[in-house]
Amino acid sequence: MGKIVVEVMPKPEILDPQGKAVRGALPRLGIEVFTDVRQGRRFELTVDGPVTEEALAAAKKAAQELLSNPIIENVVSVHELVEDAK
Amino acid sequence: MGKIVVEVMPKPEILDPQGKAVRGALPRLGIEVFTDVRQGRRFELTVDGPVTEEALAAAKKAAQELLSNPIIENVVSVHELVEDAK
Repeated sequence: MGKIVVEVMPKPEILDPQGKAVRGALPRLGIEVFTDVRQGRRFELTVDGPVTEEALAAAKKAAQELLSNPIIENVVSVHELVEDAK
Repeated sequence: MGKIVVEVMPKPEILDPQGKAVRGALPRLGIEVFTDVRQGRRFELTVDGPVTEEALAAAKKAAQELLSNPIIENVVSVHELVEDAK
């Protein structure tokens, strides 16, 4: 069983109120080191069997047409999930 | 200027209605290869200057205490963003 990860982030010029809210809350944890926070989405798409080129192509199509809104978001990564890469 | 990525996903045993909705919409794009979809969140935390061990430790603390809900979510990755790793 393989998995493909799709990562979507708001475009840099787009306001990100959720990221701003997180940024504003960090000092309450005593964390002052971060100057900006952006919040996006991460999808895991599961396939039966190994991840094929066909599955990766389908994931890229889904990323552009369903998982992201190309007006306000960028697909920043589509890659096979490697469980040890943490 | 460095960035740290924090990735948060719903725990496997937790229902994920957003992932289910995406899964249900894929056949409309002619995509039948994926048996499951899970939707989580991805954060980018910006620091002035390079990413230090201290910044990574702060990101891990923020991930556990602010960016995720440990009852229903797992922090699956906290790592420095390498712009070429796409």
